[in-house]
Amino acid sequence: MQFVATEHQHRRLNPLNGTWVLVCPHRTQRPWSGQQEKAQKNELPDFDPTNPLCPGVTRPNGIQTPAYESTYVFENDFPALVEQVPAPPNSDDPLFQVAPAHGNCRVMCFHPKSNLTLPTMTSAEIVVVINEWINQFNELSSKYAWVQIFENKGAAMGCSNPHPHCQIWSCSFLPTEPQLKQERLRAYYATNDRPLLGDYVERELQRRERIVIDNPDWLVVVPFWATWPFETMLISRNNNKRINDLTLDQRYNLAVTIKELTTKYDNLFQCSFPYSMGWHGAPTGPEHAHASSAHWTLHAIYYPPLLRSATVRKFMVGFELLAMAQRDLTPEQAAQRLREVDGTCHYLDK
Amino acid sequence: MQFVATEHQHRRLNPLNGTWVLVCPHRTQRPWSGQQEKAQKNELPDFDPTNPLCPGVTRPNGIQTPAYESTYVFENDFPALVEQVPAPPNSDDPLFQVAPAHGNCRVMCFHPKSNLTLPTMTSAEIVVVINEWINQFNELSSKYAWVQIFENKGAAMGCSNPHPHCQIWSCSFLPTEPQLKQERLRAYYATNDRPLLGDYVERELQRRERIVIDNPDWLVVVPFWATWPFETMLISRNNNKRINDLTLDQRYNLAVTIKELTTKYDNLFQCSFPYSMGWHGAPTGPEHAHASSAHWTLHAIYYPPLLRSATVRKFMVGFELLAMAQRDLTPEQAAQRLREVDGTCHYLDK
Ligand SMILES: O=P(O)(O)O[C@H]1O[C@H](CO)[C@@H](O)[C@H](O)[C@H]1O
Ligand SMILES: O=P(O)(O)O[C@H]1O[C@H](CO)[C@@H](O)[C@H](O)[C@H]1O
Repeated sequence: MQFVATEHQHRRLNPLNGTWVLVCPHRTQRPWSGQQEKAQKNELPDFDPTNPLCPGVTRPNGIQTPAYESTYVFENDFPALVEQVPAPPNSDDPLFQVAPAHGNCRVMCFHPKSNLTLPTMTSAEIVVVINEWINQFNELSSKYAWVQIFENKGAAMGCSNPHPHCQIWSCSFLPTEPQLKQERLRAYYATNDRPLLGDYVERELQRRERIVIDNPDWLVVVPFWATWPFETMLISRNNNKRINDLTLDQRYNLAVTIKELTTKYDNLFQCSFPYSMGWHGAPTGPEHAHASSAHWTLHAIYYPPLLRSATVRKFMVGFELLAMAQRDLTPEQAAQRLREVDGTCHYLDK
Repeated sequence: MQFVATEHQHRRLNPLNGTWVLVCPHRTQRPWSGQQEKAQKNELPDFDPTNPLCPGVTRPNGIQTPAYESTYVFENDFPALVEQVPAPPNSDDPLFQVAPAHGNCRVMCFHPKSNLTLPTMTSAEIVVVINEWINQFNELSSKYAWVQIFENKGAAMGCSNPHPHCQIWSCSFLPTEPQLKQERLRAYYATNDRPLLGDYVERELQRRERIVIDNPDWLVVVPFWATWPFETMLISRNNNKRINDLTLDQRYNLAVTIKELTTKYDNLFQCSFPYSMGWHGAPTGPEHAHASSAHWTLHAIYYPPLLRSATVRKFMVGFELLAMAQRDLTPEQAAQRLREVDGTCHYLDK
C-alpha cells in the first residue's frame, strides 16, 4: 500500500518548537454529538452604553473611556502583569523553582463601533490599527524583552468582550514559546546561514500545496506542522525582523492581507470566525537590543478552533493535553479550502 | 515590599517538561462577561436507546454493543490511530520532517448506566474500572511504546458522549509530553539517584501547602507548577512504575482516592466537574521492556477547566497559546479549597 497523506495517519515536526503533531485525516468522518458553540450573533449594536470599551462609557474602576474616533489604548484594569512587584526569594531546590516576572498589560480598541471586526473594517481602518501596533511596540520594546500583541476573537476563544480589540502584554523575560523559537531559529541559522522562515517561505512558494494568500510582501500558509484545524501563519517576505520595521507600503499590504485572510475565515463557515492570533518577531528590550536578529523573520500566527462548521470546534483535550497535539484534517486540505473560499466579498455583504 | 505569592505575580518551573507558568493571583478579581458554560444537567436517563455506548444499542457502523454489566471495552469506530498504515516517505529537509505513527484506539465504558460518573459510582465499582485499565494495559503495553489511558469528562472538555467512559490510545512511539518527561526524569535520576516524583512527594509531605488528599498509598497535590486552575496530580507513594504493578490493596485505595478526589471536584462548584485526566508511567513495548524504569513514578494528572463557578472556565488562549501558560490563583489557594471541600458525601446525596 502506498502512503497517502490525506488517508494515512502520520506525525509532522514543528521545527519552531521541536514538538510533533499527529495528523489523522480519516478522523473527520466520525459523528459528533458533543458541545456545540453558540453561533455568534450579528445583532450587536454599534454602541452599547454598558460596554466599558465603547467611547464615553465609564469603566468599573470609575475611569471614563474617552470619545475616541479610531483606535484607543489603555492600561488593562485587571492586568496579569504589572511593573512594580517584589521579586520572589531564590530557591536552590530544582523542584521548586521560582523566577520574577515584571510587565505591563494594555488593551487596544480597533474601532469605536462595537459591531465591526477586522474583516468588516476597511483596509484604511486596518492600517490605523497596524500603525498603533507599531506605536505601542516602539514604546514597550525599549523596555521589555517580549511584547506580545495578540487578539482573542469570539467567545469560543475566551474573549470576554465583543468590542473589536486586542491586547498587548509585555514581559521582562522571554516566555516559553518565544524562548523555544529563539533557540531553534538560532540553531538553524548557525547551520544554514539563512533564517529558517525565509527558507520556509521559499519552499512553500515552490511546493504551492499550503498557500492561502500570496502577494509580494506577505505569504499566508497553513504551516506543514499546523495543529489547529485552520491554523495559518502570515509571514513577511521582506526579511522583516519586528513589526516596527515595516515600510508604509508593507503596512498597507499587511492591512489588505489581514482583511483578505479574515474575510476568508468568516466566509468558510459563514460566521464571525473565532481565533487567537498574535505577532512573533525578534526579542527586544535592553537585553536584546544589541544581539543579532538575523535568524528571525516577522510573522503572525492564527489559531482558530472551528473544525467542521460554525458550531463544531476542535477540542485540545485528553490525548492532546497528556500526550501530543493531534489534528483531524491535513494542513493541505485546510489550505485548499481557505484558498478556494472567497476573500474579497464578506458573506454579510452578499 | 515583601514578596507574597498570593499577591505578586511570578513564574514557576515545571520540572517535568521544562516550561514555565506565569502565576497572576490578583487576576481573579476581574469581572467576567465572556462565554458561560452550560451547567451540566443531571437529568440523563440511566439508559438512552440512541446512545451507542449503552448496553444493547446498535452503533452507527451496525455493530451492537452487548448487554454488558460492568465495564465494556471496544475498538474505537473512528480511531485516530490504526495499526496498518504505510509509512510516509523519508524527508531530509529539516523543515518538512514526517515520521510514521502506528497505534490503536479503544473506548472503555465504566458502567452500564449512563447517568453515573466516577464520583457517583461505588468504590467497588471503581475497582472494576481500575482492574480493566490494568487488563488493557497488560495487553497493549506488550506491543506499544506508550499506552495513554485518559478520560475526557463533560462537554466543556470535548467529551462527545455523556456515558461514563474513558479512552485508551496506544502509540508505536513516545508522544511529545511523555518524551519530555522521560528525558527530564532520567536526567534528575542521573544526578540525584532518586526518582524526581519520589523526592517531590516527600517534599510536599513536609511542606503541606499543596496537599489535597494524603493516604498511605497515594498523594494528591495541586502541583507547585500547575497550569489549570484546579489541576491535581495523584501520585503513587509506593514507587510504582506502571499501572499494572499495583497490588490489590493499592488498587482498592486508588478507587477510594479517585472517588474522594472527584467528589471534592463535584462539590466545589456543585456540578458534575469537567476534566481531562490520564495516566503516566514508564514507557512500554519491546523497545522499553528491558530499559531501566527506576526514574519513573506512576501518576495520574487531572486538568479541569473551571475557574470561578460551574459556568465560568479558564480559557487557554491568546497569551497562553502564543507565549506561555498563565494561571489566575496560586496552586496553594486551589489546594486549600480542594482540601477543605467535603470529599465523603456528594452534593447530590445531601
Ligand atoms: O473521541 P472523542 O471523545 O469524541 O474526542 C475528544 O477526545 C479526543 C482525544 O483527546 C480529541 O482529539 C477530540 O478533539 C475530543 O473531542
Ligand atoms: O483578558 P481577557 O480577554 O478577559 O482574557 C482572555 O485572554 C487572556 C489572555 O490570553 C487569558 O488569560 C484569559 O483566560 C482569557 O479569558
